[in-house]
Amino acid sequence: MPSRFAALAGLAATVLAATSAAAPAVPAAVQSLVQQGAHGVPGCITCHGPAGEGNAAAGYPRLAGLPGAYLRQQIAAFADGSREHPVMAQVAQALNGLERAQLADYYAALRPAASATAGNVAGTTTAPSADVTRRPHAGVELALHGRWGQGMPACVQCHGRGGVGIGAVSPPLAGQPAAYLAAQLRAWRSGTRHEDPMGLMRRVASALGDADIDEVSRYFADFAAADARLLAAAAPQTQGGKVATLAAVEPPTLSPAGRAIPDSDFGRVVELGRRIFNDTPRYAAAWVGNRLSCANCHLDQGRRVGSAPMWAAWVSYPAYRAKTQQVNTFAERLQGCFQYSMNGHAPPPGDAVLVALESYAYWMAQGVTVDPDLPGRGYPKVPAPAQSPDYARGERVYADHCALCHATDGAGQAAADGSPGFPALWGADSFNWGAGMGAVSNAAAFIKANMPLGASGTLTDQQAWDVARFMDSHDRPQDPRFTGSVAATRARFHAGADWVYGTMVNGELLGSRSPRPGPRAP
Amino acid sequence: MPSRFAALAGLAATVLAATSAAAPAVPAAVQSLVQQGAHGVPGCITCHGPAGEGNAAAGYPRLAGLPGAYLRQQIAAFADGSREHPVMAQVAQALNGLERAQLADYYAALRPAASATAGNVAGTTTAPSADVTRRPHAGVELALHGRWGQGMPACVQCHGRGGVGIGAVSPPLAGQPAAYLAAQLRAWRSGTRHEDPMGLMRRVASALGDADIDEVSRYFADFAAADARLLAAAAPQTQGGKVATLAAVEPPTLSPAGRAIPDSDFGRVVELGRRIFNDTPRYAAAWVGNRLSCANCHLDQGRRVGSAPMWAAWVSYPAYRAKTQQVNTFAERLQGCFQYSMNGHAPPPGDAVLVALESYAYWMAQGVTVDPDLPGRGYPKVPAPAQSPDYARGERVYADHCALCHATDGAGQAAADGSPGFPALWGADSFNWGAGMGAVSNAAAFIKANMPLGASGTLTDQQAWDVARFMDSHDRPQDPRFTGSVAATRARFHAGADWVYGTMVNGELLGSRSPRPGPRAP
Repeated sequence: MPSRFAALAGLAATVLAATSAAAPAVPAAVQSLVQQGAHGVPGCITCHGPAGEGNAAAGYPRLAGLPGAYLRQQIAAFADGSREHPVMAQVAQALNGLERAQLADYYAALRPAASATAGNVAGTTTAPSADVTRRPHAGVELALHGRWGQGMPACVQCHGRGGVGIGAVSPPLAGQPAAYLAAQLRAWRSGTRHEDPMGLMRRVASALGDADIDEVSRYFADFAAADARLLAAAAPQTQGGKVATLAAVEPPTLSPAGRAIPDSDFGRVVELGRRIFNDTPRYAAAWVGNRLSCANCHLDQGRRVGSAPMWAAWVSYPAYRAKTQQVNTFAERLQGCFQYSMNGHAPPPGDAVLVALESYAYWMAQGVTVDPDLPGRGYPKVPAPAQSPDYARGERVYADHCALCHATDGAGQAAADGSPGFPALWGADSFNWGAGMGAVSNAAAFIKANMPLGASGTLTDQQAWDVARFMDSHDRPQDPRFTGSVAATRARFHAGADWVYGTMVNGELLGSRSPRPGPRAP
Repeated sequence: MPSRFAALAGLAATVLAATSAAAPAVPAAVQSLVQQGAHGVPGCITCHGPAGEGNAAAGYPRLAGLPGAYLRQQIAAFADGSREHPVMAQVAQALNGLERAQLADYYAALRPAASATAGNVAGTTTAPSADVTRRPHAGVELALHGRWGQGMPACVQCHGRGGVGIGAVSPPLAGQPAAYLAAQLRAWRSGTRHEDPMGLMRRVASALGDADIDEVSRYFADFAAADARLLAAAAPQTQGGKVATLAAVEPPTLSPAGRAIPDSDFGRVVELGRRIFNDTPRYAAAWVGNRLSCANCHLDQGRRVGSAPMWAAWVSYPAYRAKTQQVNTFAERLQGCFQYSMNGHAPPPGDAVLVALESYAYWMAQGVTVDPDLPGRGYPKVPAPAQSPDYARGERVYADHCALCHATDGAGQAAADGSPGFPALWGADSFNWGAGMGAVSNAAAFIKANMPLGASGTLTDQQAWDVARFMDSHDRPQDPRFTGSVAATRARFHAGADWVYGTMVNGELLGSRSPRPGPRAP
């Protein structure tokens, strides 16, 4: 062991030198803290490695490239004991405020070694190989699909595609040592780690067995980043209906009847539909005017009961819709989603995007009974609230339960690599005023049944109504059916107490400054 | 009673005088035969009334307006005893050939009294009222929908819409005295009447109970004509998706799950779809280039197992189709029907005709499991024949089992009022070369499972193959995908033993003279 530490020390100097050439100059005091430590505590590299890459064998986490805000939070948590760790408590308490900030900034700026996000970190006993990426790891199902039967979203839903992390709240998982990740999950589960917001990690970890923890930790340590790269490298093909299979990257998505997407000409169109559904801005870019995906409002890839699942929607159309005052097919319903929820443009009838989404929904419905009133469809209505939905009360609910992910300004958060993270709830990147989610009752129903992600059912009915009202009281892109007058548009499309559009909110007529949707992207 | 006969005699003179003014001059000898009789037999008016209107109370049939060929056949059948009737046997045997022909022509030319097809004939004890037409008679279900669970087509399927009759084979039923109709059905059932071709009426009548016979007879006697007029008067509305309900005219069409079409905005579109399905040239005129309806190849209004029922088709799409080499939605599948089977033009995606047909199929599928391999779907494949399908053998099958309805020239037969009767199987008014029915295996499958109408299953597998080959060896409108060369079109779309197109038949290259489909009707 001593020889290994020596080797690490030698490497550290090399890495720091190399890093300093590309990164901002690091103050000598910080270099000293990192390497030698101070105030009687050891240097960071002792555990976190010379390049901040962590120590896989020992289970010490990578720090390089982690968000500075997240690092600052963690140091503070160690210092005040809300995150318990005997060594880190001493270290954190010994550091003054300036030093904490400097260290956080230092590691945030440090570029992680290519190997950290490429696959595993040095010292991991199981090296990934090309072969491994074609044989998905056992943890991939939990990581990418979650376990919705227990209300557990996919890990990547909060930690970003490939586990790259989203903002300060959801640290990157990709390339962290498996032992570190597993230890954290066990700590959440046992309650020895408990500073998670809204108890989300406690909730998730409680549903995990030991094998789950080991497998999903190993997946993020060794495979997630490579898988995400493979997925990203697969060029989207929305023409001709041909898609290469990606069984190597993702475990098969099963229909409610337990069927995998078949490996056939039909199955490849279904798979294209599945991707469009889960990452609409990427796979149907021409028709999307914001950063939302179908799966944002239809959780678990459109499978979740009470989250307007696609298998139930498929057997509900054609249907007469008050919104259009005519009978609409499922394809026409999808067109509405693009026009309103995605603030984009309706693909023309028969477009490959629509056919793929129809095929995905149809495949998912196989084994289901054709029934417009199928149990599980839509969002379950929330009973009328005792008190009228209220902006101020909703604002508090939002601050306590929603802002963590969707941000205080409602703009959501992108993942660390720029890919979609948490969706925007209002503003330019959210659904427009024509979307169904702009009806407070509809938003309340979705929120009550599905939010907060991984902790659904924890809001009271009143809270769901209030926060829905709050959300729908913020400006967003104009209704594409805008008549030229907010009052007339409200009278025609948004009349009644269920719509805030066209009413005065905080001294401003809601809708009067809403930006008009732009032309279709070329 | 004598006073009544006297009144009839007086009326007869009036009617004959009135008729002679409009109709061709009637030879005096014929007038004498009709009124006084000859050769020791009484005049026709004795039983059939002064205007040939029949005698409802006594159960003597109307003759006025019946097809001359049918009347000649019946006189001959009475004369040779193949149709048994003690009085008519004497009458028919007493008449010479010229007299028989003259009488048949006389009654064929005689215009039936308006009351005969308007509702009931004079002397019927139950007079129809406006109210009655809103309260469908018990027999209407059998008359208009049949009883397919026992393999029984609707009466109107062979006797024409409203029971107006089709050609010589299917006499008019509308306005015939109920007692006459009931007596005939009982005679078919008991076998005392037995000159029906292929035993079709024997087969149908055997499945009827006494109440069925009385009700359906009463329906045709009193209500069918008025109902048909009501139906015809309802202007087709294929725009806006609004249709007036017609519950008064037709009994509710039930889905396989036993549901009636709902009285709702959705239901009215379903009802429109049902009408398009059953009478496509009328309700979707712009898109149809022949006289076929969807229901010609999808029996029992698209409900019949083994007849490519719509409820099974609905749960089978989207699907990859070799024909288009892509995944097609149900709507796209329908477009193909219009283009090929209807020799017309595909309604554009989202057109009201497509939405109505989709809605009809969807409504029918309610309660069914979504399953692309649902039992009952499509036409059941016929095992490969022992002998290669053969034109000459097929020609004999056609003459014996098909020509009666579809005519020796394959052109089918229109009903007496010009409405669609039996569909054309080849020629200008049939499906074009691009239709699936042009594949011999497909035609054999349909024929084996469904033909002859009301006697399905009576052909052997070999007969089905042979007659399918025969049918598909006749010219029809060109494939809309025609490349300009029959050989190239065959190679691309009709290769293999399953297609006769592009091969030599009776010394002619099949397809070389096929008329190109015309432009869409304005």
